[in-house]
Amino acid sequence: MKASQFFISTLKEAPADAEVVSHQLMMRAGMIKRLGAGIYNYMPMGLRVIRKVEKIIREEMDAAGAVELLMPVVQPAELWMESGRFQAYGPELMRIKDRHGRDFIVQPTSEEAITDIARQELRSYRQLPKNFYHIQTKFRDERRPRFGLMRGREFTMKDAYSFDRDVESAGRSYDNMYAAYRKIFDRFGLQYRAVAADTGSIGGERSHEFQVIAETGEDAIVYCPTSDYAANIELAEAVALLPSRGAATQVLTKTRTQGKSTCEDVAALLSLPLAQTVKSLVLATDELDQHGSIVKTQVWLLLVRGDHDLNEVKAGKVEGLKGGFRFATVAEIEDHFGCKPGYLGPIGAKGVKVVADRTVAVMSDFVCGANEADFHLTGVNWGRDLPEPDLVADIRNVVAGDPSPDGQGVLAIQRGIEVGHVFYLGTKYSAAMNANFLDENGKPKLLEMGCYGIGVTRILGAAIEQNHDARGIIWPDSIAPFTVVICPIGADRSADVKAAADRLYGELKALGVDVLLDDRGERPGAMFADWELIGIPHRVVLGDRGLKEGQVEYQGRRDEAATKLAVGDVVGHLKGLLKL
Amino acid sequence: MKASQFFISTLKEAPADAEVVSHQLMMRAGMIKRLGAGIYNYMPMGLRVIRKVEKIIREEMDAAGAVELLMPVVQPAELWMESGRFQAYGPELMRIKDRHGRDFIVQPTSEEAITDIARQELRSYRQLPKNFYHIQTKFRDERRPRFGLMRGREFTMKDAYSFDRDVESAGRSYDNMYAAYRKIFDRFGLQYRAVAADTGSIGGERSHEFQVIAETGEDAIVYCPTSDYAANIELAEAVALLPSRGAATQVLTKTRTQGKSTCEDVAALLSLPLAQTVKSLVLATDELDQHGSIVKTQVWLLLVRGDHDLNEVKAGKVEGLKGGFRFATVAEIEDHFGCKPGYLGPIGAKGVKVVADRTVAVMSDFVCGANEADFHLTGVNWGRDLPEPDLVADIRNVVAGDPSPDGQGVLAIQRGIEVGHVFYLGTKYSAAMNANFLDENGKPKLLEMGCYGIGVTRILGAAIEQNHDARGIIWPDSIAPFTVVICPIGADRSADVKAAADRLYGELKALGVDVLLDDRGERPGAMFADWELIGIPHRVVLGDRGLKEGQVEYQGRRDEAATKLAVGDVVGHLKGLLKL
Repeated sequence: MKASQFFISTLKEAPADAEVVSHQLMMRAGMIKRLGAGIYNYMPMGLRVIRKVEKIIREEMDAAGAVELLMPVVQPAELWMESGRFQAYGPELMRIKDRHGRDFIVQPTSEEAITDIARQELRSYRQLPKNFYHIQTKFRDERRPRFGLMRGREFTMKDAYSFDRDVESAGRSYDNMYAAYRKIFDRFGLQYRAVAADTGSIGGERSHEFQVIAETGEDAIVYCPTSDYAANIELAEAVALLPSRGAATQVLTKTRTQGKSTCEDVAALLSLPLAQTVKSLVLATDELDQHGSIVKTQVWLLLVRGDHDLNEVKAGKVEGLKGGFRFATVAEIEDHFGCKPGYLGPIGAKGVKVVADRTVAVMSDFVCGANEADFHLTGVNWGRDLPEPDLVADIRNVVAGDPSPDGQGVLAIQRGIEVGHVFYLGTKYSAAMNANFLDENGKPKLLEMGCYGIGVTRILGAAIEQNHDARGIIWPDSIAPFTVVICPIGADRSADVKAAADRLYGELKALGVDVLLDDRGERPGAMFADWELIGIPHRVVLGDRGLKEGQVEYQGRRDEAATKLAVGDVVGHLKGLLKL
Repeated sequence: MKASQFFISTLKEAPADAEVVSHQLMMRAGMIKRLGAGIYNYMPMGLRVIRKVEKIIREEMDAAGAVELLMPVVQPAELWMESGRFQAYGPELMRIKDRHGRDFIVQPTSEEAITDIARQELRSYRQLPKNFYHIQTKFRDERRPRFGLMRGREFTMKDAYSFDRDVESAGRSYDNMYAAYRKIFDRFGLQYRAVAADTGSIGGERSHEFQVIAETGEDAIVYCPTSDYAANIELAEAVALLPSRGAATQVLTKTRTQGKSTCEDVAALLSLPLAQTVKSLVLATDELDQHGSIVKTQVWLLLVRGDHDLNEVKAGKVEGLKGGFRFATVAEIEDHFGCKPGYLGPIGAKGVKVVADRTVAVMSDFVCGANEADFHLTGVNWGRDLPEPDLVADIRNVVAGDPSPDGQGVLAIQRGIEVGHVFYLGTKYSAAMNANFLDENGKPKLLEMGCYGIGVTRILGAAIEQNHDARGIIWPDSIAPFTVVICPIGADRSADVKAAADRLYGELKALGVDVLLDDRGERPGAMFADWELIGIPHRVVLGDRGLKEGQVEYQGRRDEAATKLAVGDVVGHLKGLLKL
């Protein structure tokens, strides 16, 4: 491609509404252009990246035996009523009526449409397993679209759906997709981690997120550097930090801690380690009658160590809390603890179920609230000062340095951006939509399903969050809008420069390199600034002076400085770098 | 591709709602699957055709210097209010509100979005000309979606938009796109015609439709087989069929023609050629006041020869009718002609403006209604029996056999399906949306625009309407879902057959041929029926018996019978056919 035949539009300043670096840089590099809130034009420079991402996905999905089709953007609401999601999906689901007043939706995902295809097309066990995918425009009417392509409303997603005859085969389909995703993310050239994730209300054990590592990521990823353990923080198992409970050595003592309502403040006041304190969190569960009125409320006290945080996803898996919980009101707290929040503890609370985190359950001589304003208790010991907890469970977030649950080392935490997800769905949709096949005995059975998404346009944002510097974007080779840019200096004045640039351009094109020749006639400074902002990984500069000495300059986007190369060596040098 | 890794689903019968052959065959061949009225899933077999169509379009658009981007499906209504189309567009425009109650539309086309980009990005004459295109999902909420992909609601369109500094440059951009479209349609391998088309209310002289020739087409295409004249029937110029008016030779006579109210009946009754009769059509134009009330109505009598039809598009270009017209009411007709419809004519009509078609204006001794029930006049002559017409104009449809307006032969008419359109827009959108650039003198000027569409998914329907037989679809090589299918017979029983099929598959793949190996193990009859229905252009059959004699069978989809080829010759034979 020659720059004069393309469209390049860079900005010195990012618009004020661009809050994160990927949004700022994509706007400045002319990759996207805002059409409305969370709705972007993909400009020519950005579209090239999208196409490269799509091509990698398509090649690996095809290689994994998935078959591409294309389901509509606008879908009849009937299917979504069958699955129950027309009602259950929040305002993110964009609902429309057609000219006849019939309900439609703009698809945020395609479980319903693919299940409708499957129940018509996959009639026999002989046709299974089958995996269909499409790469299609999606729409989610986010309440607050932001961060450019990271949380837009209209976006491109690859979603695949597997259909299997039984759970075991569905597991193989899942593993197959997991392996394909590894190849896809490897080819993107991004640092990423596949992490086990919570399966939410659907249940089952199979869910992995593909997280692109970036300091700015919204998600906390837990991993063990010395093993392959990796999980989303929602799921990562926190083990007890002591092998067993120590014997009591202190006397239970009530201590004045006026105005000190946090564990941190109490530990500081008492000159004790924070790890000796216990935090009290009060939840409530409501039992409803058939009309939805509350007939009974149970109050729960959850205890985590003072330096730990409650993990609400884990709390939601505790027996008794699975049906949903809320934080207790101040009135409920006063009722059961005889005390305002800030000085709560397990001793003397009435009608409360106590759930201790695994670590809290093995603590001794700990500190907790006295259920009396401005007082805490020290030297608290289970069994001696209060009964054993009603339940012991993993209800906290892991912290860096915790032992890995696989026993293979110590956990670390980093931030990530979720760009892919593989998920075992089971029969959630096939049951709701009656998607059967006939097994070997001619008996109808529900299709076992899995779904597998990749946020195509989100990849761009994540790649930039991970790979940028003060000058701009740094694309990995495989998804850069152009792999190599040739910058001739003064081609309008020097026939030699022009000829050398054209020759190099021709040679690289002939090798299949995605090369751009910058024939715009810009001054060197402006030209370099553009390509550094846009993030082309490899740059070759040709100037009259250098050519007289038979030299050109090569600079990788991450290189500190340019390297001088003999004119005759530059193609070979690039072939080596690009592994051609 | 191996069939076992793909998805093939054929039907013996088409669904009842499939009215046209392309719809029936696409459903039967498993290319599309209905999701809702006018909304289809593109199944794997159909998607392959779409991708090939898109690839050809993309390559030729890029070669023509157009730059690809991608504009959103869901667009803010504000832009459409600026252009006036949010109000003016009928119920085909799908309107939505987002969660905050803001108006959006699902794009039926992208003039507004691209003009919004252009007014921000194309600021200087130095950036012009520029042509942007995208291939994107469109939605038009047709009142009565039908004919499968021919008149669906959701469809894929390539739309390109050119921006130029002046009319002359816009003409060059138009010519450039016209030439690119020729290449695109040549590559599709379809019989087509580029025909001049009416420009409607936008005006200007530049509009061409690309029509795929098919007997079932909705459009009538006029062309001259001995010249390159071609036009949509709405536009095709009808010349006077006589060089000049002959002298009057008959006496004006009133003749009883009881119950004969059509020209055909009158000509038969009087044993005269239909070409001697004149048909009367009565129109009316209303002058409105500022409140939209009618203040004055003018009645018009339009005269065409008895064997000709009125062309309403042409009538709408007659001075006085340009502002819009309607057919007159019976009351208005009786008022001005003193007679009910059926026996109307120009003689004695009061307060009526008479517009004669060019041919009528040079007729002599003609027959027309007498403005008296059950009577016609014969031997009517202009000047002698009635004044010369107020206006003479081309107001009829051409008919086959008419002289070509370029004087190079005689016109023929065929049916076509419109699948492409190039259109000079002028400043319609740039004026409405204030899309300026700065010229050499730093003065703002409106961008001159053109738009260029190809109905990507419609191409599939049109290709099938043109190319099918009783057994199924006949795809041109360039857009077939697979170019070659290999059908091994009894590969499960014969290792030789399996090995030969695998070898041929490997050889063709290595040559870059898009080949499918049918490894499903179907019986020959079912296998052949599938591929003839699906329409794969080239088939190679390998069987045990033939292989023992060193032979395989080749059959082109249009061939009456198979040709025996030596095993060693088949690749060479296919290379020849596919021009590799």
